Amino acid sequence: MTNAVEASVVNSVGDRHQVVIIGGGFGGLYAAKKLGDAPVDVTLIDKRNFHLFQPLLYQVATGSLAPADISSPLRAVLSKNKNVRVLMDEAKHIDTASQKVILSEQEIPYDTLIVATGVSHHYFGNDHWATVAPGLKTVEDALEVRRRILCAFEAAERETDQEKRQALLTFVVVGAGPTGVELAGAIADLAYKVMADEFRSIDTSEAQVILLEGLDRVLPPFKPELSAKAQEGLERLGVTVNTKTRVTNITETGVTYLAGDETIDLPAHTVLWAAGVKASPMGAILAEETGAELDRVGRVVVANDLSIPNQPDIFVVGDLANFAHQGDTPLPGTGAVAMQEGEYMAEAIARRARGEAVVPFRYVDLGSMAVIGQHEAVVDMGFIKFSGFFAWMAWLIAHIYFLIDNDRKLTVAIHWIWNYFTKDRGSRLITETAAAKSLQLEKEFATVVERKQAAKQEV
Amino acid sequence: MTNAVEASVVNSVGDRHQVVIIGGGFGGLYAAKKLGDAPVDVTLIDKRNFHLFQPLLYQVATGSLAPADISSPLRAVLSKNKNVRVLMDEAKHIDTASQKVILSEQEIPYDTLIVATGVSHHYFGNDHWATVAPGLKTVEDALEVRRRILCAFEAAERETDQEKRQALLTFVVVGAGPTGVELAGAIADLAYKVMADEFRSIDTSEAQVILLEGLDRVLPPFKPELSAKAQEGLERLGVTVNTKTRVTNITETGVTYLAGDETIDLPAHTVLWAAGVKASPMGAILAEETGAELDRVGRVVVANDLSIPNQPDIFVVGDLANFAHQGDTPLPGTGAVAMQEGEYMAEAIARRARGEAVVPFRYVDLGSMAVIGQHEAVVDMGFIKFSGFFAWMAWLIAHIYFLIDNDRKLTVAIHWIWNYFTKDRGSRLITETAAAKSLQLEKEFATVVERKQAAKQEV
Repeated sequence: MTNAVEASVVNSVGDRHQVVIIGGGFGGLYAAKKLGDAPVDVTLIDKRNFHLFQPLLYQVATGSLAPADISSPLRAVLSKNKNVRVLMDEAKHIDTASQKVILSEQEIPYDTLIVATGVSHHYFGNDHWATVAPGLKTVEDALEVRRRILCAFEAAERETDQEKRQALLTFVVVGAGPTGVELAGAIADLAYKVMADEFRSIDTSEAQVILLEGLDRVLPPFKPELSAKAQEGLERLGVTVNTKTRVTNITETGVTYLAGDETIDLPAHTVLWAAGVKASPMGAILAEETGAELDRVGRVVVANDLSIPNQPDIFVVGDLANFAHQGDTPLPGTGAVAMQEGEYMAEAIARRARGEAVVPFRYVDLGSMAVIGQHEAVVDMGFIKFSGFFAWMAWLIAHIYFLIDNDRKLTVAIHWIWNYFTKDRGSRLITETAAAKSLQLEKEFATVVERKQAAKQEV
Repeated sequence: MTNAVEASVVNSVGDRHQVVIIGGGFGGLYAAKKLGDAPVDVTLIDKRNFHLFQPLLYQVATGSLAPADISSPLRAVLSKNKNVRVLMDEAKHIDTASQKVILSEQEIPYDTLIVATGVSHHYFGNDHWATVAPGLKTVEDALEVRRRILCAFEAAERETDQEKRQALLTFVVVGAGPTGVELAGAIADLAYKVMADEFRSIDTSEAQVILLEGLDRVLPPFKPELSAKAQEGLERLGVTVNTKTRVTNITETGVTYLAGDETIDLPAHTVLWAAGVKASPMGAILAEETGAELDRVGRVVVANDLSIPNQPDIFVVGDLANFAHQGDTPLPGTGAVAMQEGEYMAEAIARRARGEAVVPFRYVDLGSMAVIGQHEAVVDMGFIKFSGFFAWMAWLIAHIYFLIDNDRKLTVAIHWIWNYFTKDRGSRLITETAAAKSLQLEKEFATVVERKQAAKQEV
């Protein structure tokens, strides 16, 4: 405990207002950057040493971009903001009585706390599906998805049994929100265009890409006419879209789902999960410590200034916040909402420091967009909706604009221009991920157990 | 076995000469590419789905480049060569009697076999050092080294004990060949320049980078005057160079070495291995099957046409080959030697197919180069030796020239130009590698064992 005591002494040196931010996603990073010239001390805590540009994660999962293209080291982004320090550590708990964040080996005192720890996958009570149907939230997730997709093609090339080969070439994406739609489109492009010439035993056009959605259309948050455009686009790419379905089981060999009254067993080697999210554990910790209300998926219901009711010093921003003060439903868990919330927080803190009044947060909806395959997108800006090539250009420009560093803007733009003209995809490496390693360890363990059982039976 | 039988039936369809290449490094890939328009069928077998440009691996390990920048999917590189098929599989054995390569689930018949499986690290009988002092041969190695270097700085930022902090900030590279020299220089740049502004508790200039070498100078294969230039350059960057040392022990907390008669215990959190290589297991398999002679580190001694003596259909190229028909010592294990051997093989096979005579292999030495930190290198082209900025430019141009795809040439050039002007390094992500995961599993296991032992003692 010596370290913790020493550390907190160091931390409280000076009389400046101490702002602690947990999480370096869009919400946390935008708050930290904007506080970079305010008269406060800022500590940004994250388990990872980099900010991840999640909207492009599906391009890492399908080999268009490398992880580093969409990840920015937090220290590098914030190096010029001398009042901001970055700590790579995990927040274990929050002690609201003494106003401290408890990390693995030290405690950080705060005057104002901003919690921005986001969400993770939600398998609706079927957590064991996580190993057979990975989701897409972290760099490791994306590398694992990439590994599975590419390994399926490699295994199919070696396979001589027609039925097994078809299962290896069947890719199922569960959930047709933006991530699911973008992932399915990118897999179809990979199979039918990018890798068309690369195999000698299999014909990659025999691959099947199937998108399953529970509701009656793809991209449910968008206007129905854009959903229809998106579905048309996906079908043109070769994706089979099945709406109004309900997945009832996922195993290593396939997926079972209900379509109307019919139960369908689909043999498939690769099943990917893009269907639901739940709040990170910090939500429950806040509820326990402060009595904050949580919604159905564990997000913290916040006041109109993003604070927790009756806790004027604790704020929640980004995907972890349920902000329901505009319209009928809470704001969606998008990067745009998180960025605006983060910047609002920074301004609110600066205003409070100057003794000025703080106005409630208001989200300015600049629209939604999703990409459908290589050169097509749908864009809904409220007053105008469009789709096709120009929508794709708009999507491209917006995403490059919001990438954090100039280095990344440049290399991502070059990768995309290159891919556009060559249909190439350079980041198609099968690397041994941690997930693959533990999967292998599990399998080895299972084999040992089987052998021992067999040996027993022989005796 | 049904699959294997079916597969070999498929494989021997047609009367064309069957060339099988094991390994997609410089030797194997250059042979396959050059055979791409010869009247033979080629099967390239590799455990990985990509070719790795190993000379730049140290830049992945130190965050300048992403793995995908220096890796090219083998299928993409060879997609236009319709007579070449790629199999992602592991060669387990070679049956010379029936002329077949045995893979995990099938057998591939060959008329001509080219073995190009390279080398791995050699800890000179101290294999347990592998977990505490990783080497640099694969993408996973590089990510693990990168993770260790970056985590050491992060842990130092959290550490309040001065002694522990210094050990965390001590980086030892064992072996001062090109890889060791380049790695030490890149770590020094990272600590003293790139990350200088990014920490708030530690001063990165307190970091120590120590290069240990057994012989009396760095870069032993180079001319002595260039070794001296290289050492000067390294010392200017802040690297401590200790020659004529012998490492006697490496643990998780440091390294012990002999310098003259003195035994030195150096507390160091990060120790990296760049000291020795040994042949891949395929060398021993060839020796067993064909009676081939192996050298001290297990490389196969080849005839002057790269064949195994008395085995006119089996050839060894690249690092795995000991070719001693030029000069006093065998050719070094460099990319340049492997490329030339691979291309020679392809031409020799085409000549034999046309009934023409084959001349012995002759390596054309185009010189050696090594980079010292950010903007300096040493170049030895035999008739001319130079060092400094222009040597660095020559190094840069040569490496971009030899990168396999145009996409990579472009993005690597842009990364380097960017880094040159900004001193930035974008690929500094700490990701959870398979090695980190197993390390963690091992530690958890150790904790469980300790607890159990403690519980026993209490009883």
